[in-house]
Amino acid sequence: MSHPLLEKHRATLDGAMNAIQTRGYWSAYNEMPSPKTYGESAADDGKQAFEAHLGKAFALEQPGQLAGDAGWVGGEQSPYGIDLGVRYPVCDHEALIAAGQAAMVGWQKAGAAGRTGICLEILDRLNKQSFEIAHAVMMTTGQGWMMAFQAGAPHAQDRGLEAVAYAWREQSFVPAETVWDKPQGKNPSLVMKKHFEIVGHGVGVVVGCGTFPTWNTYPGLFAALSTGNAVIVKPHSNAILPAAITVRTIRAVLAENGIDPNLVTLCVADRSATQKLVTHPAVKSIDFTGGNVFGQWLIDHCRQARVYAELAGVNNIVIDSTEAYKPMLRNLAFTLSLYSGQMCTTSQAIFVPAGGIDTEDGHKSYDEVCADLAKAVSGFLSKPEVALAVLGAVQSADTLKRIEMANSGTLGRVILASTALDNPEFPKAAVRTPILLACDAADEHAYMEERFGPISFIVKVADTAAAIALSERIIATHGALTAGIYSTKPEVIDAMTSATLRSKVALSINLTGGVFVNQSAAYSDYHGTGGNPAANASYADAAFVANRFVVVQRRYHV
Amino acid sequence: MSHPLLEKHRATLDGAMNAIQTRGYWSAYNEMPSPKTYGESAADDGKQAFEAHLGKAFALEQPGQLAGDAGWVGGEQSPYGIDLGVRYPVCDHEALIAAGQAAMVGWQKAGAAGRTGICLEILDRLNKQSFEIAHAVMMTTGQGWMMAFQAGAPHAQDRGLEAVAYAWREQSFVPAETVWDKPQGKNPSLVMKKHFEIVGHGVGVVVGCGTFPTWNTYPGLFAALSTGNAVIVKPHSNAILPAAITVRTIRAVLAENGIDPNLVTLCVADRSATQKLVTHPAVKSIDFTGGNVFGQWLIDHCRQARVYAELAGVNNIVIDSTEAYKPMLRNLAFTLSLYSGQMCTTSQAIFVPAGGIDTEDGHKSYDEVCADLAKAVSGFLSKPEVALAVLGAVQSADTLKRIEMANSGTLGRVILASTALDNPEFPKAAVRTPILLACDAADEHAYMEERFGPISFIVKVADTAAAIALSERIIATHGALTAGIYSTKPEVIDAMTSATLRSKVALSINLTGGVFVNQSAAYSDYHGTGGNPAANASYADAAFVANRFVVVQRRYHV
Repeated sequence: MSHPLLEKHRATLDGAMNAIQTRGYWSAYNEMPSPKTYGESAADDGKQAFEAHLGKAFALEQPGQLAGDAGWVGGEQSPYGIDLGVRYPVCDHEALIAAGQAAMVGWQKAGAAGRTGICLEILDRLNKQSFEIAHAVMMTTGQGWMMAFQAGAPHAQDRGLEAVAYAWREQSFVPAETVWDKPQGKNPSLVMKKHFEIVGHGVGVVVGCGTFPTWNTYPGLFAALSTGNAVIVKPHSNAILPAAITVRTIRAVLAENGIDPNLVTLCVADRSATQKLVTHPAVKSIDFTGGNVFGQWLIDHCRQARVYAELAGVNNIVIDSTEAYKPMLRNLAFTLSLYSGQMCTTSQAIFVPAGGIDTEDGHKSYDEVCADLAKAVSGFLSKPEVALAVLGAVQSADTLKRIEMANSGTLGRVILASTALDNPEFPKAAVRTPILLACDAADEHAYMEERFGPISFIVKVADTAAAIALSERIIATHGALTAGIYSTKPEVIDAMTSATLRSKVALSINLTGGVFVNQSAAYSDYHGTGGNPAANASYADAAFVANRFVVVQRRYHV
Repeated sequence: MSHPLLEKHRATLDGAMNAIQTRGYWSAYNEMPSPKTYGESAADDGKQAFEAHLGKAFALEQPGQLAGDAGWVGGEQSPYGIDLGVRYPVCDHEALIAAGQAAMVGWQKAGAAGRTGICLEILDRLNKQSFEIAHAVMMTTGQGWMMAFQAGAPHAQDRGLEAVAYAWREQSFVPAETVWDKPQGKNPSLVMKKHFEIVGHGVGVVVGCGTFPTWNTYPGLFAALSTGNAVIVKPHSNAILPAAITVRTIRAVLAENGIDPNLVTLCVADRSATQKLVTHPAVKSIDFTGGNVFGQWLIDHCRQARVYAELAGVNNIVIDSTEAYKPMLRNLAFTLSLYSGQMCTTSQAIFVPAGGIDTEDGHKSYDEVCADLAKAVSGFLSKPEVALAVLGAVQSADTLKRIEMANSGTLGRVILASTALDNPEFPKAAVRTPILLACDAADEHAYMEERFGPISFIVKVADTAAAIALSERIIATHGALTAGIYSTKPEVIDAMTSATLRSKVALSINLTGGVFVNQSAAYSDYHGTGGNPAANASYADAAFVANRFVVVQRRYHV
């Protein structure tokens, strides 16, 4: 089993295969926007490529595009306040599905090696567009530049490659053919030739989110694609451009390699058209990242498809004790500030014992911890250039409203109010600092649902044991992608570990340095476990890919 | 990663791992009831062990057994007409679930190696009970002795081992721990220790069927068990004994190895109690083999669980031409007769062109094919000892009624009527020969739903192309586990191959010897593809095991 593109990218694939097995640090794509890696002119070229899209129609040559004005839609609003004005083709979803199904025949025949090779080439080409995509991500999501570059481009590509590697592992395990030779005692053997074909389940739809339009899209996109399926990318209405650039590149690489480019299409659709798309009988998988309402609707209504859903959760941290108080506060301050808390992995609830915590700097009361964390956040954000780079801008009006409500004190006592910052480069940018609220464990209505955005609660809990129990209950019932514990006591860490094994959430222990609870590294960290209500799947594991294809065999005597 | 029982059975596991990758012939358990393999006294001992159960209470020491008479239930009716009279414990399903959940903690701690080793030991112990289990299967299902031995014992054990092998492949791929060392340019690396724990999703329920109480139960049972889950076996009300013997042995092996035996329990339950069991929030997987009504109910109502369902289908064969006419007829006659067509893989519809078929023996008209197949079946069954051994007995009253209806001619012209045979050894046995019906392709109401039992249709189709198209449509809409083609023309075989790639069904080509379309060999043949309505899962592949556990990680700086 091979293919020229598989051989071209063999080292990348081998690296990824080794990385998913050893789960040590590895990356195929440089996370630093380095001219050495990306080329001296890459930064300027990418910016210009991005700017060239603005105010224009983004042609994709897809089937079923509606006639006239109905055939184009735009309307993305940049959180940075710049005018985007890109228009995208609007295509009949039936035409996209039919074209995808037709294209699947040739894609199946390409075999696992061909598909994997072509996916590796696609990722390589997307990597070369990292600056262009980073600008598109930044300007549609409000991420700061460095995050937009890293999470939007190389890290997203790594997550895509990770999915390709898992898919390759499962597909390459299936032999193309075998001879089955069953002894029959003194009689001649029964001998059969058997062939095994990998066939994709059907059309996959990947529903993107407004905050991470590539990082949360590439895993499902590449998992479905590399296992033989057509893919229709349905981007968030406010983060279309990164998806459109991605789809255009994929279509180009497919066409160059003799594959019908309609295998992968962009479907810019309103809610009603999206619902028709995702409930179509030909759609066999749906990857979704977003809120519980639509996510649950997908799970309830798209019974013809397997739904891989990442939904809301209540990420939380238990603070029991520490011997690195200031580093802990700095670490938390960064976590709460990064992209204004608009990550699905950002901690929302921090549980602190009512009696306070022991630190190397003496005992700290609950109120002191609140005040010190507030100070750490405001201190960290005191330099405007740091604040603007880390916070980015607020992606949605809903999040701005939630911040306002939290600032009003209705959800808890305001320890640190959210303030608006000016961004000289983008005067219309919606920049907000994090808000910290204090509340009691009993105020479950306040902290026990996702408050997406820079809104966190420092929850006063009777003691550490109660905090661990509360964390477990929240995660089991409301879900979480991340949990954290700070403690100097092995028995406390053990208790929290046991709790997270029951509630099935990834645990970060005593993070005080340059790793943050809201960071998840491809190949090493499982993003979501698939075992609590925040997500029914993980990036990435065998379960994320194995059910996207079937094996169809045929056998005959020889 | 190891465990004494893993080392004890290492050769078996290695053999299975090699077999699932190469998919050649292999078996861990001798399918011949040979005294050399099983011991000189094994046949007598097994028969006595089976007989010792009759008329007795089958104690299992499970929690939650109801008090007094309510705590025991029996009522199995042997298709062979013998008195069984075994009574089984009736336990509150809540108690079984709670006990299973409690037992999962220790089972998780045993690790993948421990779980796999213990599962291998269980299979070995079940293998040693092959005669006892074969008698239990024979007398509860009506299978003939040889099938009951092979399918009920070694082949079922092979299917169980296959699931264990796939589960081991996925679990052993997950490293227990790693060191993540990320370079930071001139600064010290970021170094983290990470641990990865495999945790079962939750309690698994395996719902058995009345015809293959071990072969169709062991894959889900061992897939769920070996991946860290508790398992509650809910047998068919008429085939409890094989499941009860299995569960007792599993519990004994678990206890011997320090695992709480309540990890695996038997739940003899009526429909209402079963519905409460399978919809319980703690139940996270359900394996089911059976009819569409309850299967669809499970899929619709057990939304908290992953449902692996094998349902009804319309298996079919296209006859275009052959150069081995008599061997083809003999092969089909055996297929239609084996266990009175009560296999989920038995062909129900045989498509023959209206213009007849070319054979090495000259052209045969549609009517000649009908008559010759009828003659082949009746000829094959003309020796009573062959007929009784192959046909076994009819498992359910519903199947007897279906045979009667078909015999009346309401479903199509009777080419070969079903007759009742006397079984001197079992005078009350319900033995019926297959019925063959002729009908036109337009009579879809007749042949296009599953008519479980020895009822087959020879369907007159315009031509081969129409037959292939009809086969594809049936499989895509009604499902099938098996399809067959007889043709001497490569282009016809190619067309059928393409059709089965679209409809996602396993294809057998020109079977004229000692392999039959309704046979599926563990490690080599995928049983079901998971891609058409007859089954949403396959025995066995990565998808069958990968979603039964999650990986929970923890990480900290070193």
